[in-house]
Amino acid sequence: MEVARSFARARNRYEGTVGLLPTLGFFHEGHLALMDLLREECETLVVSLFVNPTQFNDEKDFAAYPRDEDRDAALAVEHSVDILFAPPVEEVYREVSQTTVEVTGVTDEMEGRHRPGHFVGVATVVAKLFAGLQPDIAMFGRKDAQQLAVLRAMVNDLRFPIEILEAPVVREPDGLALSSRNVRMDRREREDALAISRGLFQAAEQVDAGERRADRLESTVERSVKRLDIDYVKLASQATMKPITSLDQPAVLAVAATVGNVRLIDNVAFDFESERPVPDRGILLDEPSRLTTHLADDGAT
Amino acid sequence: MEVARSFARARNRYEGTVGLLPTLGFFHEGHLALMDLLREECETLVVSLFVNPTQFNDEKDFAAYPRDEDRDAALAVEHSVDILFAPPVEEVYREVSQTTVEVTGVTDEMEGRHRPGHFVGVATVVAKLFAGLQPDIAMFGRKDAQQLAVLRAMVNDLRFPIEILEAPVVREPDGLALSSRNVRMDRREREDALAISRGLFQAAEQVDAGERRADRLESTVERSVKRLDIDYVKLASQATMKPITSLDQPAVLAVAATVGNVRLIDNVAFDFESERPVPDRGILLDEPSRLTTHLADDGAT
Repeated sequence: MEVARSFARARNRYEGTVGLLPTLGFFHEGHLALMDLLREECETLVVSLFVNPTQFNDEKDFAAYPRDEDRDAALAVEHSVDILFAPPVEEVYREVSQTTVEVTGVTDEMEGRHRPGHFVGVATVVAKLFAGLQPDIAMFGRKDAQQLAVLRAMVNDLRFPIEILEAPVVREPDGLALSSRNVRMDRREREDALAISRGLFQAAEQVDAGERRADRLESTVERSVKRLDIDYVKLASQATMKPITSLDQPAVLAVAATVGNVRLIDNVAFDFESERPVPDRGILLDEPSRLTTHLADDGAT
Repeated sequence: MEVARSFARARNRYEGTVGLLPTLGFFHEGHLALMDLLREECETLVVSLFVNPTQFNDEKDFAAYPRDEDRDAALAVEHSVDILFAPPVEEVYREVSQTTVEVTGVTDEMEGRHRPGHFVGVATVVAKLFAGLQPDIAMFGRKDAQQLAVLRAMVNDLRFPIEILEAPVVREPDGLALSSRNVRMDRREREDALAISRGLFQAAEQVDAGERRADRLESTVERSVKRLDIDYVKLASQATMKPITSLDQPAVLAVAATVGNVRLIDNVAFDFESERPVPDRGILLDEPSRLTTHLADDGAT
């Protein structure tokens, strides 16, 4: 595996179809599952590892975001990554950095409303990765549902010849969506956080039983997470990321809530087959994640 | 020559190094000179022809912009263009178009101040051309001096692996900078417009004679163009496009003024050699342009 610090260095190692998995690093089993999925789709597998300062609207969140490149590099090797693109900040943001990429419309609600500037940071950094790395395929997880809509719009609008693949949410056996931020929750907080996926799964069962009204589905989730600090619970169109009142099109039921100091997001997507909504609950790990264990629990700092 | 209506079709015809000359069409000898220069630098020469609606802040200006694809295609063939990329609007701006690219800083003054939204339109459409066409080299004329600075910033910031080449201003034998808009001036207006280049050349002579003070150079130009409707006369840094008080770095002396209904821009660039400013007055045609003759003068509509 090549660890590339510059765009040019990464591009020089390409052979055949190039697949890119953009990440903020601190890999967990969710990232590893995506690497394995993308490995099947390309000849050169590039994983980028860059904690992008401009997408954190809270400096403390940026500072607290876990980082460990050596650990990530070892995991990437195990998962047959060809190029780990781990640039210094100044390779991505030049000394004078004056250009931003903004996607409107799909960013109006949910994360866009609660994290000012977040999606400008995301769209800008992913535009840099796409312009600089020129992949043929890029993969993003459905856990960041609104981000997926933003990046699909960006790729389509800026006419990047890049195919976007979506990967399912990867969950702990008990349902908690994997997140690098999970390491910052203690056992008690982690237990509280289960209310999110539990509420989403209950709503998905209601949908399977025929419920289509957004307010009913949202209420189910709200009841489950009522002890958490909720930013939003919303049924939104996958295409526009605008709230819908009835589940009559591909949609996501999305939640953002804070547990302790950790802001978590999760969702169940509803795709349509034969005009019926089919919940995508993601995939459950057979065994608890080893890589998102609370740092205090396994002696790491 | 291939006339490509889609990005994919254009990309499919590439061989070797790809050079792109973005244009709004209605070619004149200035465009043709740039084609000939770029032809020397690449194996596949792509000229894009797209009157971009989003960079016109004035709808009337957009509507009045001259267009003639057949004429342009014939000229492109004569100048050994490989691919004329002439997309319909919907290939560049998809049905729902939500993404903009904005460059700050270098856009604060001059054109950025006088044409609100212009550079967002320019940066966005060129980002689309760069993302969708993936050229290795792109050429822009120095006549649009601030546009060059904006696009250099955009390419550097978004990390496009594209080399930007600058081409000199191409002028009539009497000094008037070539512009597709020149066809909209009658003989009298064209005569008035000469005050612009005359003023710039006088200032360049002052620089050759040792003058470095911005206010003196600007006054020289202002005196020459005082009968026109002036937007600005500014000495600005090439790097930042901010006004400077003394010619102590690579700079442009730039003018925007309206003659009749036609807004014209022009400039003399000052590059530095051995710590001395060297004016780039551009190149003078040996014979008057045939392609920017006033439409009423040659019977065209």
